[in-house]
Amino acid sequence: MAVRFLDKYAKGFYSDEEYSRVKELLVPADAKLRAESDVNEYKGWYGLPFDYDKEELEEIKRVAAKIQKDSDILLVIGIGGSYLGARAAIEFLKSQHYNAMKKDTPEIYFVGNSFSPDDFADIVSLCEGKDISVNVISKSGSTTESAIAFRFVRHLMLQKYTDAEIKERIFVTTDCKKGALKNFADRERLKTFVIPDDVGGRFSVLTAVGLLPIAVCGADIDEILAGAADMKRRMEAQGIDNEAYRYAVLRNVFYSQEKFIEILVSYEPSFRSMAEWWKQLFGESEGKGGKGIFPAAVTFSTDLHSLGQYIQDGKRCLFETVVKQTEVKNELYVPPNAVDIDGLGFLAGKKLSSVNSKALMGTLLAHTDGGVPNLVIEYDKRDERNLGELIYFFFLAVAVSGYMLGVNPFDQPGVEAYKRNMFALLGKDGYSELREELDKKLSELGH
Amino acid sequence: MAVRFLDKYAKGFYSDEEYSRVKELLVPADAKLRAESDVNEYKGWYGLPFDYDKEELEEIKRVAAKIQKDSDILLVIGIGGSYLGARAAIEFLKSQHYNAMKKDTPEIYFVGNSFSPDDFADIVSLCEGKDISVNVISKSGSTTESAIAFRFVRHLMLQKYTDAEIKERIFVTTDCKKGALKNFADRERLKTFVIPDDVGGRFSVLTAVGLLPIAVCGADIDEILAGAADMKRRMEAQGIDNEAYRYAVLRNVFYSQEKFIEILVSYEPSFRSMAEWWKQLFGESEGKGGKGIFPAAVTFSTDLHSLGQYIQDGKRCLFETVVKQTEVKNELYVPPNAVDIDGLGFLAGKKLSSVNSKALMGTLLAHTDGGVPNLVIEYDKRDERNLGELIYFFFLAVAVSGYMLGVNPFDQPGVEAYKRNMFALLGKDGYSELREELDKKLSELGH
Repeated sequence: MAVRFLDKYAKGFYSDEEYSRVKELLVPADAKLRAESDVNEYKGWYGLPFDYDKEELEEIKRVAAKIQKDSDILLVIGIGGSYLGARAAIEFLKSQHYNAMKKDTPEIYFVGNSFSPDDFADIVSLCEGKDISVNVISKSGSTTESAIAFRFVRHLMLQKYTDAEIKERIFVTTDCKKGALKNFADRERLKTFVIPDDVGGRFSVLTAVGLLPIAVCGADIDEILAGAADMKRRMEAQGIDNEAYRYAVLRNVFYSQEKFIEILVSYEPSFRSMAEWWKQLFGESEGKGGKGIFPAAVTFSTDLHSLGQYIQDGKRCLFETVVKQTEVKNELYVPPNAVDIDGLGFLAGKKLSSVNSKALMGTLLAHTDGGVPNLVIEYDKRDERNLGELIYFFFLAVAVSGYMLGVNPFDQPGVEAYKRNMFALLGKDGYSELREELDKKLSELGH
Repeated sequence: MAVRFLDKYAKGFYSDEEYSRVKELLVPADAKLRAESDVNEYKGWYGLPFDYDKEELEEIKRVAAKIQKDSDILLVIGIGGSYLGARAAIEFLKSQHYNAMKKDTPEIYFVGNSFSPDDFADIVSLCEGKDISVNVISKSGSTTESAIAFRFVRHLMLQKYTDAEIKERIFVTTDCKKGALKNFADRERLKTFVIPDDVGGRFSVLTAVGLLPIAVCGADIDEILAGAADMKRRMEAQGIDNEAYRYAVLRNVFYSQEKFIEILVSYEPSFRSMAEWWKQLFGESEGKGGKGIFPAAVTFSTDLHSLGQYIQDGKRCLFETVVKQTEVKNELYVPPNAVDIDGLGFLAGKKLSSVNSKALMGTLLAHTDGGVPNLVIEYDKRDERNLGELIYFFFLAVAVSGYMLGVNPFDQPGVEAYKRNMFALLGKDGYSELREELDKKLSELGH
């Protein structure tokens, strides 16, 4: 029993009536989530911790071990859901400084998530003189960012390796049957892993999309899946009032009070990328149809000296969800000073983790005093089981939260708009009408 | 002439009347900024690009050269404004991967901005077998996070160096006369640099606070100051309708339309920490008295596959400020494929920077179509002069923007609340009444 949800600190911020009114939406939301559905509803993540293909899992571990053995660097090519989960998990389990630290596993860099030539040039320079493997992740293989990066990376590899060697160093995670990347992989006889048809990008961290890079950093991916399965079982046993659903209900209560921003707060710098993953999960699932809570994130105590002022005293349009870690990997004790130069002598000999938790509690009380409701999610420590639990907790919560809000939490219709415009401006075939329209707009704007 | 502000893409989102009504607040705001003031008003940053102490600047360069020569790692101890500016500048000028890249300047890690024992333990392990220097930055020397880190770091150094060597490796940036850190530095005869009395943390990047770590990464700090001076001169020459002030007016126009969130958008991953610095500058300056625009940030195109859905189609409570870079350091050309496997053959041979700018323009048009006003700030390239211009542009804008909003942009009264609670919970002398009050609250909450 690792992850707990605590609503007690937020009690003063809503009435029983408000809670009940929103909670009425929960039963139909839960029913929608549990209903049989076809593949296009993208609910495949729901059963995943139990249904996972055991053979695929063993293959992931085998390939991860090979990469660990023959590579200094793993380049992961993917954008959005095709990299945020893996990066989050690696930093959570190891460290935000994973790549810089001494270790016997490869450095892992995420590319193909930007069009910046400078950034790509930096990555190329990091690869100089190193043995690299590549995991290219794309459902279709035609996602522009990652497809371009894959072109660059293959050219980079051609300078280092023979054709036969390259085939042993590229691993493809894609559709099981169709798509540009699948066709390419089959023709070149590259090792492939499957992105299930019914799992969307932001729900894909518990598939090969996330699990292969995570396994390369040395993490135990069975334990992650076991944590997710535990969470599913526990929430189901708790019934309709389960902790994940209570989190979902309270988010919607605060939204109905015009608190449009949710800030995910952590006191561990190595949680930062988890917050980025969470921002995608919640923002992309709920932000549609003119609705949705805007997801933001801070790391305290550092950001208490940045956004802390706003949270304490700015516009009252927000609430906080504090992620609290209760155990550390390495305890430290505040060292004594011969002379108490900094006035902190009263802390000498205290556990640093205890100072951190007093900062958390002091801040929580200060912010609730300032009119900001605080929800709390506790986990024990940064290990695989807690990670799996956290991931599945957020999956469950965002699914019913989106349904309660009246949106489809599993689509992302708004993501196409920029792509269409970009293709038109780049002169892609089939976009000439839109191109004319945009050119007219731009010429009116003086371009 | 490097940094430009463009409001043309936002024209349809406000009427001339709305603009004029808000602009009436600009003349008094400008007058307030220019008025003679005492040191407690914290407007020292205003004249800094011209008034900078030339001797101090030479000393910064001399010390930076020494650190470059005898250190593998520089540890910068500071929190909030005492590290965000330097980190932002180093990543902007060099790379988000600065520490990982091959170079002849030291790695630079920022510590003392968290109470996490795990994070500190990671940093200690990075220092193993390396020669380190330390720059400890604190006005008072009693800021808890950085004072504790300084205790740990001195114990770490005692294991590596003699007392005499340590004195040569610790550099103190603090008050010119008083405070715990100043007293300590004087007693130990450590080299000190000055945080001017009338410059607040979030406005301190152009003092020794920012300039020493920035110089260590090999940047030309004279050019940064020259860029800031250029910006000041240019905005003054443009008069009351200058670009920085227009940005401030439009922010307040959108705020009056209940657009409570400003998203700073960049297409360069190495701009990410600049956005963190910007979030502190704007959030801490304006978020008070129940008011203020909430500052958020994204890096596109990656976050188009994360927060892009929300921005395109979620709650219409936001506007975007797009930071556009027009020149790259390393151009790349999209490589051809023998077979057009990814359907991107039409891009082969194109500049990657041109794909990036089409993505920017396509996204801007999509988001404005979706009801999100877009402001644009253009700069030429990631160099010292552009950095100085950008910094000073934002300083000017936030100062008048805060005054127009009716707040004091140079204080941060809300930052004390968490500190008081934390000290009380940690049992510090003088906080016993508050301690009782908090203990009562916590026991009611079941602690």
